[in-house]
Amino acid sequence: MFFEGSEKKIEVVLTPGSINLRKLGRSYWQKIIEKCNATILSTVSTDKIDAYLLSESSLFVWEDRFLMITCGRTILINSGLEFIKEHGTSAIELFIYQRKNEYLPHKQLTIFEDDISKLKEIFGGESYRFGRLDGHHNYLFHYATKEYQPAPNDITAELLMYHIGGKGAQILRTEHQPKSVIRDLFQLESNLKGFALDDFVFDPFGYSLNAVKDDRYLTIHITPQEDSSYVSFETNIELKTMPQLLSTIVNILDPQTFDTIFYDRSCSHEFSKDYMPVHKAKDNLSSGYEVEFTHYMKRFVGCDSATILD
Amino acid sequence: MFFEGSEKKIEVVLTPGSINLRKLGRSYWQKIIEKCNATILSTVSTDKIDAYLLSESSLFVWEDRFLMITCGRTILINSGLEFIKEHGTSAIELFIYQRKNEYLPHKQLTIFEDDISKLKEIFGGESYRFGRLDGHHNYLFHYATKEYQPAPNDITAELLMYHIGGKGAQILRTEHQPKSVIRDLFQLESNLKGFALDDFVFDPFGYSLNAVKDDRYLTIHITPQEDSSYVSFETNIELKTMPQLLSTIVNILDPQTFDTIFYDRSCSHEFSKDYMPVHKAKDNLSSGYEVEFTHYMKRFVGCDSATILD
Repeated sequence: MFFEGSEKKIEVVLTPGSINLRKLGRSYWQKIIEKCNATILSTVSTDKIDAYLLSESSLFVWEDRFLMITCGRTILINSGLEFIKEHGTSAIELFIYQRKNEYLPHKQLTIFEDDISKLKEIFGGESYRFGRLDGHHNYLFHYATKEYQPAPNDITAELLMYHIGGKGAQILRTEHQPKSVIRDLFQLESNLKGFALDDFVFDPFGYSLNAVKDDRYLTIHITPQEDSSYVSFETNIELKTMPQLLSTIVNILDPQTFDTIFYDRSCSHEFSKDYMPVHKAKDNLSSGYEVEFTHYMKRFVGCDSATILD
Repeated sequence: MFFEGSEKKIEVVLTPGSINLRKLGRSYWQKIIEKCNATILSTVSTDKIDAYLLSESSLFVWEDRFLMITCGRTILINSGLEFIKEHGTSAIELFIYQRKNEYLPHKQLTIFEDDISKLKEIFGGESYRFGRLDGHHNYLFHYATKEYQPAPNDITAELLMYHIGGKGAQILRTEHQPKSVIRDLFQLESNLKGFALDDFVFDPFGYSLNAVKDDRYLTIHITPQEDSSYVSFETNIELKTMPQLLSTIVNILDPQTFDTIFYDRSCSHEFSKDYMPVHKAKDNLSSGYEVEFTHYMKRFVGCDSATILD
């Protein structure tokens, strides 16, 4: 029943005056997504954005940029390389490739070094690790032209939760749960007023949500498996407009440990006193983003049994 | 400069009336150790035990049992399999194989599942994981005959420290440090009265120590590398006779995070309030040992930069 929930991510911003990415249409993006062995399940749109729910996570397409997130054993870099091959490096103003630590790295088909060795043949980018090798960590490669400058409201917040507990975990581990029960758990209708929602319940459990409004997205991917549960949340909503958002999600899912990753200078968050930061790393990328990674853990009370292996 | 300090470990107890393992001599053990690509550097003995300092960690040989600990990219299981092949399963009353989580698991030549698949063809043992997959954890395989019963004073305590800091780390990262400086750091002469000591300083840094007295051993292995430092301590000294031993070592090395593993019902330890347990797992093995694993972390103050990768 093991599933690797942790994700790889590509974000691409086009050079001004390039093609309109939304006009490429679903069949084009299906072809790109197939390169990493995922498929499109469904779509929801606003005036500014097309959000594709994938068999392994999500794809968001704006006129001038796209964001692909995939989990499991997908080789996301292959989708990125296909895009570069078709459109050329001159069309690309920013290319970010990110990869989270995995539960079972040896079951992955590539490692981060393999992935970026292909990118480095194309772009002269830089790569970083945020977080310690023996704990949670995040790899990041970025390339940007000298002209690239992120907009002041170009923020990203990621919240990555491990070993969820309590009533939330119980609901998410119930097989064939109706969508409505999971929407209620997160109070999506009241918390996300005005957002178009697109969600999917996997068999027998597991849940993905894309939510979009104007040019803003929010996405949740839930792998509830006991012993290796993982829930990721990501958004470009300016968190100062929803200051309780992240702590509300943490309180619902009651994880033993979680990470935050912010591409945002204005981001500051208060979590329950049960959690303490065990590592923090921050860097100013030459592409103009200030990236901050924090790994939080909860004091452990009681004692587990060992996990019996086959 | 990366070196994988985390260890694999084999402990074997012979069936009563089998051969005397000490009589096999250094050349025999050199041959066994070569099977995992390590070599013997030096030896120290008491009436009860021969302690071999290895190029990758340590080997302890009693008349009726042995303990091998190796780090780096050694395939320790090959040494264990060679011993079984030569002496047969009927000579073996207990076989324990342990493997710690690695900094770079994908650089290892085998994974735990590979290692024990070979053991399971020979013994009908059981395997466990203590600790969570996304944090520190320890794999353990054990096989014992029905007759096997550990002696009341058959205890083991392991202390595994990561990201050491302060003055201790500074001393250990200084190149070509004389042995005497490292012995002074741990106050070995006063803390280990009556023990025979055998230690080695690696080039340019790194340190291994074996200390033995009667049938008791204590071993320290230090990989001080910045970004991936690791120090392991292991002993069969009854800790109730030296109740401050572990906390003294932790205070000297000031690690960001450490684990304890006890094969000992009587073991209970107080560490500085700076550290909190973030996971604990305990199990009673059918071989008669109660094994307890605890992962501690320190609150992180301040903020690191990201690690720049090549």
